[in-house]
Amino acid sequence: MSQKFDLEEKLRFYVITDRRMSNEVKSVRLAIGGGATAIQLRIKDASTREMVNVGTEIRKITRDFNVLFIVDDRVDVALAVEADGVHVGQDDMPLKMVKRIAPNLIVGVSASSLREAIEAEKGDADYIGAGAIFPTATKSDAKILGLVGLKTIISTVKIPVIAIGGLNHQNVVKVLKSGVDGIAAVSAIVGASDIRESASRMRTLIDNYFRKTR
Amino acid sequence: MSQKFDLEEKLRFYVITDRRMSNEVKSVRLAIGGGATAIQLRIKDASTREMVNVGTEIRKITRDFNVLFIVDDRVDVALAVEADGVHVGQDDMPLKMVKRIAPNLIVGVSASSLREAIEAEKGDADYIGAGAIFPTATKSDAKILGLVGLKTIISTVKIPVIAIGGLNHQNVVKVLKSGVDGIAAVSAIVGASDIRESASRMRTLIDNYFRKTR
Repeated sequence: MSQKFDLEEKLRFYVITDRRMSNEVKSVRLAIGGGATAIQLRIKDASTREMVNVGTEIRKITRDFNVLFIVDDRVDVALAVEADGVHVGQDDMPLKMVKRIAPNLIVGVSASSLREAIEAEKGDADYIGAGAIFPTATKSDAKILGLVGLKTIISTVKIPVIAIGGLNHQNVVKVLKSGVDGIAAVSAIVGASDIRESASRMRTLIDNYFRKTR
Repeated sequence: MSQKFDLEEKLRFYVITDRRMSNEVKSVRLAIGGGATAIQLRIKDASTREMVNVGTEIRKITRDFNVLFIVDDRVDVALAVEADGVHVGQDDMPLKMVKRIAPNLIVGVSASSLREAIEAEKGDADYIGAGAIFPTATKSDAKILGLVGLKTIISTVKIPVIAIGGLNHQNVVKVLKSGVDGIAAVSAIVGASDIRESASRMRTLIDNYFRKTR
């Protein structure tokens, strides 16, 4: 990683797309309009051609607004659209392989346990997506890490940790109090009827928290 | 491309996996045992982790037997498992992007028309997969190029052309007479009850044709 920006700061408000809820490009525009600091493009069940087309659009928008752009799972798509990074889960490409084929990408790794988080840090991950914090309909099979598990990870690893899974406006302050570097949301943002407004309210909650405490 | 081997020769008998018919690793072992000169790993609907696991196994086998190893669609998987190349269709990553992110991979491109074949050659593709020659159940939505269309492509482009789509033991000699550099098969090989025997019979037909004519 040789980025000019402060990764920790860019990870504060991380919005993930979900085409079951809203068109990717549209939701990215609105989420950024509302204050998202990072975007993760998560597309399943689309052709690679469609992924790179959507990714190219999102790269333009995120570049214009100086927002971090991460692609879920697909290292090839991340490289092709010149995203800042890729995010891999335990069913995706092993971290070691990602680092070998894409040494210049930021790499985030999902961890649902302390063991996975430690392993990711050892493997030179740039940040950890820890969760699920709460049960979530977006990934109904997600293992629940909980707030206690989250705190254990934060106090153990040195790389930035963002919290994911079931986060919304009601519980975000409780999650921020764990000491997390950022929060990730899917349905609370891209599933909202007014995505920009929902993102804006979330951003305010996050900013207010960091202003008071850090 | 800076391969030590003769690509044209390696493309003569190109077998593509299909998990709906047979487990990939098993069918690759048997197809190579029967004489396949190239293997394409085509997996859809699997996690990236599974793809790289299967691909790593196939890389070992193809390396041991000096068989060309191409991955369908997924440039990241091809890079991660150190395949020789990647094959992209018109719904996959555009050739230009593939060349940029993976300059050392052999890149094959599917063409179902002369226009697509010419464009692939201009874009510096290493070979063309021309088809579908005949209707095929493996890809029921494939456009039919036919033998006449195949001959037009062969007489127009200079890079190697392999024929794909509906090829089997009955029609392969007719296809070889078009002047094609190699033939690709899915169901005729990996859908056979005895994959090794089916591959061996196909290889004999191909070898006999080339011995007589070229």
